[in-house]
Amino acid sequence: MRIPILKLYQYLIISIQWELDDQTALEFQEDLLNKLHETGANGVLIDLTSIDFIDSFIAKVLGDVIKMANLMGAKVVITGIQPAVAITLVELGVHMENVITALDLEKGIKNLQIELGENPWESSSPV
Amino acid sequence: MRIPILKLYQYLIISIQWELDDQTALEFQEDLLNKLHETGANGVLIDLTSIDFIDSFIAKVLGDVIKMANLMGAKVVITGIQPAVAITLVELGVHMENVITALDLEKGIKNLQIELGENPWESSSPV
Repeated sequence: MRIPILKLYQYLIISIQWELDDQTALEFQEDLLNKLHETGANGVLIDLTSIDFIDSFIAKVLGDVIKMANLMGAKVVITGIQPAVAITLVELGVHMENVITALDLEKGIKNLQIELGENPWESSSPV
Repeated sequence: MRIPILKLYQYLIISIQWELDDQTALEFQEDLLNKLHETGANGVLIDLTSIDFIDSFIAKVLGDVIKMANLMGAKVVITGIQPAVAITLVELGVHMENVITALDLEKGIKNLQIELGENPWESSSPV
């Protein structure tokens, strides 16, 4: 089973809601890059809210996919990083220089819009 | 592995990108109703773009989950129904009276906004 990648306007949105095994993580990396190529999306949002643990392999894949997406011209936003995940990422030295982070998906979209200088959605306060 | 349910503003968005087995479909039904209850979302978008075949059990679960979500006060939009899926749903008599449909996710969001008379996103043309 692969991780669904959702295209909404010019962004790709991925919500990772379970611990990934190595195979799934690699397939995700491949799928995301293919989808970027296919759709010409210029922003990627990866939501990790439901993930409270990340191992070194997955951290590396995540770091790599961010670098690869940047190379392909897309900005990446990671949202909902939990404390233990933040610790793991820093301790493993995963490079997150070109990554925008945000507390949740809505704030992530806002940050991405600011970063890209565009406004496909003008978000007002939810009803 | 469960189907990720993404909360964006007051909507839940689900992209089903592979054929579901019976167990996953039932877990999805349960997860979606729980998430509706937890979040108080008032709209649900289910995207079936990647699904080109649906069996009778999954069609029934889908019909049921729509009725249940309606009972809980949420509007449901189904997007990207492919020809073979449309045929199956009609032939099996799955009730879709209270369902809004749309070609893709963006149009689905627009229809949901119109139906609910609200506008959490004001979508302009993507850059």
